[in-house]
Amino acid sequence: MKHRFTNDYSSLCHPNILNALANLKDEQNVTYGLDKHSLRAEQLIKDVFESPNGQVYFISGGTMCNLLFISYALRPYEAVISLETGHINVHETGAIEGTGHHIITVKGNNGKMYPSDILNVLKTYNNEHMVKPRLVYISDSTEIGTIYTREELINLNKVCQKNDLIFYIDGARLGSALTSKENDVEPGLFGNVCDAFYVGGEKNGLMIGEALVINNRDLQKDFRYHIKNRGAMISKGYILGAIFEEAFKDGLYFDIAKQTNDVADYLKEQLINNGINIKPSPTNQVFASLKKKDAQLLIDNYGLELWEENEQEIVVRFVVSFTTKKEDVDELMAFIKNNI
Amino acid sequence: MKHRFTNDYSSLCHPNILNALANLKDEQNVTYGLDKHSLRAEQLIKDVFESPNGQVYFISGGTMCNLLFISYALRPYEAVISLETGHINVHETGAIEGTGHHIITVKGNNGKMYPSDILNVLKTYNNEHMVKPRLVYISDSTEIGTIYTREELINLNKVCQKNDLIFYIDGARLGSALTSKENDVEPGLFGNVCDAFYVGGEKNGLMIGEALVINNRDLQKDFRYHIKNRGAMISKGYILGAIFEEAFKDGLYFDIAKQTNDVADYLKEQLINNGINIKPSPTNQVFASLKKKDAQLLIDNYGLELWEENEQEIVVRFVVSFTTKKEDVDELMAFIKNNI
Amino acid sequence: MKHRFTNDYSSLCHPNILNALANLKDEQNVTYGLDKHSLRAEQLIKDVFESPNGQVYFISGGTMCNLLFISYALRPYEAVISLETGHINVHETGAIEGTGHHIITVKGNNGKMYPSDILNVLKTYNNEHMVKPRLVYISDSTEIGTIYTREELINLNKVCQKNDLIFYIDGARLGSALTSKENDVEPGLFGNVCDAFYVGGEKNGLMIGEALVINNRDLQKDFRYHIKNRGAMISKGYILGAIFEEAFKDGLYFDIAKQTNDVADYLKEQLINNGINIKPSPTNQVFASLKKKDAQLLIDNYGLELWEENEQEIVVRFVVSFTTKKEDVDELMAFIKNNI
Amino acid sequence: MKHRFTNDYSSLCHPNILNALANLKDEQNVTYGLDKHSLRAEQLIKDVFESPNGQVYFISGGTMCNLLFISYALRPYEAVISLETGHINVHETGAIEGTGHHIITVKGNNGKMYPSDILNVLKTYNNEHMVKPRLVYISDSTEIGTIYTREELINLNKVCQKNDLIFYIDGARLGSALTSKENDVEPGLFGNVCDAFYVGGEKNGLMIGEALVINNRDLQKDFRYHIKNRGAMISKGYILGAIFEEAFKDGLYFDIAKQTNDVADYLKEQLINNGINIKPSPTNQVFASLKKKDAQLLIDNYGLELWEENEQEIVVRFVVSFTTKKEDVDELMAFIKNNI
Repeated sequence: MKHRFTNDYSSLCHPNILNALANLKDEQNVTYGLDKHSLRAEQLIKDVFESPNGQVYFISGGTMCNLLFISYALRPYEAVISLETGHINVHETGAIEGTGHHIITVKGNNGKMYPSDILNVLKTYNNEHMVKPRLVYISDSTEIGTIYTREELINLNKVCQKNDLIFYIDGARLGSALTSKENDVEPGLFGNVCDAFYVGGEKNGLMIGEALVINNRDLQKDFRYHIKNRGAMISKGYILGAIFEEAFKDGLYFDIAKQTNDVADYLKEQLINNGINIKPSPTNQVFASLKKKDAQLLIDNYGLELWEENEQEIVVRFVVSFTTKKEDVDELMAFIKNNI
Repeated sequence: MKHRFTNDYSSLCHPNILNALANLKDEQNVTYGLDKHSLRAEQLIKDVFESPNGQVYFISGGTMCNLLFISYALRPYEAVISLETGHINVHETGAIEGTGHHIITVKGNNGKMYPSDILNVLKTYNNEHMVKPRLVYISDSTEIGTIYTREELINLNKVCQKNDLIFYIDGARLGSALTSKENDVEPGLFGNVCDAFYVGGEKNGLMIGEALVINNRDLQKDFRYHIKNRGAMISKGYILGAIFEEAFKDGLYFDIAKQTNDVADYLKEQLINNGINIKPSPTNQVFASLKKKDAQLLIDNYGLELWEENEQEIVVRFVVSFTTKKEDVDELMAFIKNNI
Repeated sequence: MKHRFTNDYSSLCHPNILNALANLKDEQNVTYGLDKHSLRAEQLIKDVFESPNGQVYFISGGTMCNLLFISYALRPYEAVISLETGHINVHETGAIEGTGHHIITVKGNNGKMYPSDILNVLKTYNNEHMVKPRLVYISDSTEIGTIYTREELINLNKVCQKNDLIFYIDGARLGSALTSKENDVEPGLFGNVCDAFYVGGEKNGLMIGEALVINNRDLQKDFRYHIKNRGAMISKGYILGAIFEEAFKDGLYFDIAKQTNDVADYLKEQLINNGINIKPSPTNQVFASLKKKDAQLLIDNYGLELWEENEQEIVVRFVVSFTTKKEDVDELMAFIKNNI
Repeated sequence: MKHRFTNDYSSLCHPNILNALANLKDEQNVTYGLDKHSLRAEQLIKDVFESPNGQVYFISGGTMCNLLFISYALRPYEAVISLETGHINVHETGAIEGTGHHIITVKGNNGKMYPSDILNVLKTYNNEHMVKPRLVYISDSTEIGTIYTREELINLNKVCQKNDLIFYIDGARLGSALTSKENDVEPGLFGNVCDAFYVGGEKNGLMIGEALVINNRDLQKDFRYHIKNRGAMISKGYILGAIFEEAFKDGLYFDIAKQTNDVADYLKEQLINNGINIKPSPTNQVFASLKKKDAQLLIDNYGLELWEENEQEIVVRFVVSFTTKKEDVDELMAFIKNNI
């Protein structure tokens, strides 16, 4: 069976994660995330991301993290600023609006938002007949696999601070961003540069769960009530606790991401060597421009996602997962050489 | 005191409306809109707009009409298709999202939406990770004072029918649309071409209230429960009933709109004669392009709204109201001649 | 035609109110409640109720006042404490839950809530799997026409302060409470004893509108955005402004309430004199216990509301309105003497 | 370490479930619940519960099942009928109200609801100023461990059918109900007696996940959109699919429940033999009445939940889990003999 490059969550988890779960089997744990594993995992994450006053909540799914934090942070008439391509704007079936909030979209550049985007919004949305912009939402790595530099994040933080905006970062693929060859950001910046962010587990080999970190103490009160109210409190919270404990006790989280990025870099190199046009992306998503016929062949054989289609080209997405091996890339390249 | 051209709801109401209210003073009426005035007004509106199976609800405010109907018609994951400039998208402080629904925006042309806009949305929004497009929202007259032709409305209806979309028309300035010199639509088309629409009263000299008409019988059940649940049921519903009874028993509604359009046409003529560049708009909103200094002078003296500003021009909006007289236009023009 | 005792909002308004409206007819006013009438009315109300730092919003309908303030004041997981018979709990079609909030009900006594009711709730609702009690809702006068004493209100305020609870009073019939013969509360207490309250206009002869007063400065920020977001911002806000300006500039509000109470007292006296058993109620709602046959006769002829029915008795409600005259009571009593 | 009797979800899962997960480790599966394991598990569940036209959704958590189905099934002004003690009413932090719906509570008897409870509600809630009762919510086994008989369920179904009410059963502990010695209900009744129900996994040894079964075809359309909109669509749905496939392919689900009930029956027997007063409960929750001092001792040593406290008695809850062994009961009984 061919390895598929559809996404990074079609495989269960790294073996160590499964072992960590197996180790729970004779325990009786406190429930709802107040167990020893969750508490230790919380501390490990606060240490790595330098958020000593932060609180960490283990949540099932990135959409739920976004929904929970944004609906907690905003008053009814307040809005989110997001890129047009933002995950919350196009791929979450209206979950944010479902909690009552408008999303103001901006175009950005290269998958990233810039202070000027925010300032333009603030200029336009200036009276009570319009929603009140209040929270900036970005993803890192971005929807198209690019990453923010240290300076870019700090600049976004500044404009937020100055304009009383909440800054929230969707880290569904944060591991990939932080272990990219082009990365210049220390994990510790995340505990300081934003009000909240989440550390994606499900797309980084962790079986299930994301770690939502709220740095801002003013946005922590009664958050567990909020989780329960939205139906997202997990009775066996110790499962997610044990997973994240395993992921962060010895750096496994970053090891997985690093290895995945290495294979992705290898894929990019091979694609270029074979004359295939790829978009710049320093993480584990690889976007290639192909002729229609060739694109379809790869979609059929390797489960690629059709990303964009216009008269000139078809862009497909290869996602390298923690289970993708160099051999899988080699097999793919042989197929490409023979068929394209 | 100079007459101001800010909007069409800064003056109370046509004198006949005030008389109709005064006539209520010795009555004890059934409450919550089940009184004889409301019932008669409902029948008059059903007759004029040819909606024999329709139901009519008298509501305070256009935002509330939109909020009520859209939140009733849609399931949580369903979305509205609106122009980017749609009133619900930019001037209602997120009221639609406040009830849980995403708004998908399209660009349209000349303030109007076309079937191709809708079909493009349907092509893009095609899976369960995205909201489900389900309701088409337009305004007639539009936000920039243009009006839909009979053929355009029928074409929108066809594409909605074919694709199981609900078609809803915001008629905040419906009177102005239907009495425009360029209009080719009979009022009766509104009872047949859409699932629901509202007949704007507040911008057409009626003191208070809009008449929401639901043509589609499948969207009427328990609607009064919904009104109450949203806090919008008016205890003294007979007030709105008496207002709309007066407006529709002898055609006053259209008389007011017609006279207002006439004054607006006179204004357009005078502006053109004085070399001022205006946008095509066959209704009571008049958009003129001016130099920055001149625009500011008129804003300060006549309360004009600054509509759009770019490097090339400033567009200001004059709104002719039911209280605007030709003499008021003449006074304005004299000011313009002397100062611009 | 017989005068009906169904409720206190089936008649339009006091003649002075109509005159105040008529006086607007040649004005062009600023819209959305920022006009001179609204501003003056706000100041008058702040003076009367001694809320110098308060903000006043003119709203259409009591359900909307409740919905607006409660949904603004609470976070998603926070709940209201209300009597079982509270208007929000039984007569508003789930409007509060519609904004996301649970209502915790208590039994109270004689239509009133007491500190012990609140303390019991706080004892029970003590963890994050339950809603968090956060706002105390009472009505004055109450659903059964009783009124709170000065001491009772102060005691409720104390328990709220001590337990970080928001205290909100529904004053749909506040005029009747404050002008009752049994009343010992100065209007000025309302600016000091609670976080917010509303002054009912529609049940006190004011045509349309209620005045929501938010005393607590921490609960005022961006409230106008909230009103608009819920669809409740009235474009012609000057109508409500002019009504409340008229009602409070010379004490008309209390004059109407006082006169209504006087007629209600006369009715109670007459009923007692005729051997009819009435419940103690010092305001304009009068509850009488009757035999089934007699109750039905009065319901049919005078529009009384059937309040409660059990095997022993039927309780009907007479409501005295600002238009009810002593002659109407006499006519009713003659009917009773002849038929019961 | 002593075995704790706090609840039935403090232990990870049955060993076979862990094996089933381990077997996924080399697979790449389709995501979002459309994988082969989920599809097979769905068919197995439809077969066991005789719901050939049903649809099955695997969800994380019972609160989420309740929230999802109820918010999908109801229009904004419609309400749930639940026992006062219903899980949704007291232990879900207002999750149902959070989606906009009022809960009407009834007292019931012995933890169960009866047709007369429902009919009384329908009689009271009869106009548009009140919420519209539309969905009946019960739990089986109930909050106090009792179970519904076949006849009781059929009678509830009849009253729902007759009054256009949706009937929904919370089966958090359905396994325990269906394998109780007192049970007279076949699993297949659940596919026929209600519109929807969920089969609890997390309290029956299945690690994570519940299976929501919607029998009524009119309540299935676009349900996956709804799941995503509420943030509850699990990216690695194949995890839950594999768990439920394992649980239902050879009857493991019922084996676990049966064995747990057997140990619970042994506990009840032993408690009675030792003179401890227990409430009748034929499932795995055991409620005992104790003196204050004794209750506290057991709470401290065995993690019992304090269920109810009044002047006469303290009721504590023992929950027997799938990991509880007869030896654990013996150890507990020895402690009781020595200390109480």
